[in-house]
Amino acid sequence: MNTNNAMVRLQKACKEKSPLCIGLDTDPSYLPESVISRFPSPAEAVVAYNQGIVEAASQYAACCKVQVAYYEAMGLAGMKAFSDTLKLVRGSGMIAISDVKRGDIADTAKAYARAHFSGDFETDIITINPYMGFDTLEPFVEAATAADKGIFVLLCTSNPGRDDIEKLSLTKGGTVLQAVGNRLNELANRFGVGEGSTSPVGAVVGATAEEDARALRDAYSRIFFLIPGYGAQGGAARVAATLLDNAGGTVNSSRGILCAWKKSAELADKREAGTLTMSDIVGAAEKASEAAMKDLQQAFAALKA
Amino acid sequence: MNTNNAMVRLQKACKEKSPLCIGLDTDPSYLPESVISRFPSPAEAVVAYNQGIVEAASQYAACCKVQVAYYEAMGLAGMKAFSDTLKLVRGSGMIAISDVKRGDIADTAKAYARAHFSGDFETDIITINPYMGFDTLEPFVEAATAADKGIFVLLCTSNPGRDDIEKLSLTKGGTVLQAVGNRLNELANRFGVGEGSTSPVGAVVGATAEEDARALRDAYSRIFFLIPGYGAQGGAARVAATLLDNAGGTVNSSRGILCAWKKSAELADKREAGTLTMSDIVGAAEKASEAAMKDLQQAFAALKA
Repeated sequence: MNTNNAMVRLQKACKEKSPLCIGLDTDPSYLPESVISRFPSPAEAVVAYNQGIVEAASQYAACCKVQVAYYEAMGLAGMKAFSDTLKLVRGSGMIAISDVKRGDIADTAKAYARAHFSGDFETDIITINPYMGFDTLEPFVEAATAADKGIFVLLCTSNPGRDDIEKLSLTKGGTVLQAVGNRLNELANRFGVGEGSTSPVGAVVGATAEEDARALRDAYSRIFFLIPGYGAQGGAARVAATLLDNAGGTVNSSRGILCAWKKSAELADKREAGTLTMSDIVGAAEKASEAAMKDLQQAFAALKA
Repeated sequence: MNTNNAMVRLQKACKEKSPLCIGLDTDPSYLPESVISRFPSPAEAVVAYNQGIVEAASQYAACCKVQVAYYEAMGLAGMKAFSDTLKLVRGSGMIAISDVKRGDIADTAKAYARAHFSGDFETDIITINPYMGFDTLEPFVEAATAADKGIFVLLCTSNPGRDDIEKLSLTKGGTVLQAVGNRLNELANRFGVGEGSTSPVGAVVGATAEEDARALRDAYSRIFFLIPGYGAQGGAARVAATLLDNAGGTVNSSRGILCAWKKSAELADKREAGTLTMSDIVGAAEKASEAAMKDLQQAFAALKA
């Protein structure tokens, strides 16, 4: 077992540097027209913006999460932008998480693992949907282990619809998400227990699940969490901090950082005049990243005080 | 409500022409070296092979299912091959199903819908994973309705792991997959009832679920099924035929068709000599398509006899 896989490295970076994950869910509609119009295509504007954020904000974050849907929506040019963005993130020293939520059986799962652990779309960690069953997780665990990569499996998502399936109560006891969580604990056990664990398997737990945060954190105390829902989705730093306890986690902020220019008081005049530049909007994202990092660090310090 | 959406058109084509869906899960490893080596890249060989199959076999099938994982695994060239393959299928008069199993929240789901219902990756119908909750289905239903497209939602998959989550019993009664199925019935109700239904929402039900086939077919009698697992995965025509009853369905065969050249007796000498041509392997796929169509039609006739 290798102790240098991406999940172990991310866990270390989040403890030593910052719990923040910058979400590069960069839809072109998040950029002002005055910036987009300077590029030959929206996809190229997105890559340039991502590059600006990666360079300016890498000191405040351990990783970037790249939501593939926004890139797929731009077609082939978008997939090139996805590939370019992953290279920028990985080249910066931050860890890249591709939020792809893939999940499929046998050879198809192996193909997805090849797609995202090597080649044009190579990343460090991918998100996985476990719905089709635990046999569908195995090819990803094997591939991650072989290539020093990692996977985050959906456990308790940040949307209200988590009540529809994830939180249903089972006749055998517990809920659907606990059935998934039990399997994640079993998977983690394969890689050693306690501080020395080298499991490449993490879990997605939303910062909006306030009523469940403490119980989830304790039930899966050795599993590292990817925590979406903080900021624009309404999740509080206090809830996120709870989820950062024990094995730790990384807290994603996407629109709170990408769209910070829309709320910046000092950019109000330029915003109204339609003269915002790339430097303006990257600067706003940098300030928002620093603020998010400090917000999370303070909330965690308060929790542990 | 438009009666011309892709799901309604597919339902009609399956009843009038053939229940067969050809699975273009074309991994380059499914092609002999003597064919691959004639192309500048594996991705181009895959597109040429797909083109051959679409031209030769369109008379035996209503649709083709394109599994995106095998194309993603080839990186940017693979995504171009995915785009080209969808154009070939749609240009042939067959309906294209992109087996993407996407699923995500709110704006991200909308981005996935844009990605696959328009632009470079435009298809007719996509597969959807409902795990994150029913709010995640709505953007896809809306987008499908607006663009005359369709969605197949995972209901009972063909792999053994379906026992792990899909078939868990709930304290409120029924199973997880029945909770999903109930919502699919509700969604279908929005588009009218009975023969005149114009619902763009179908369900994935594996042909390997022999013990459940009749109950599933009757519980969701008005929902059109995408039926994987026939052939190489072990599903019998008899089970598939049960699932073709009521509102009908389309039965997918992937490796049984794509890899037919590996089992063809008349190609044995060429196979051993390493001299198989594109024409040889496309011819084997054509024969396998015809045989699969007849196998399914006979099984269905026997069921109804």
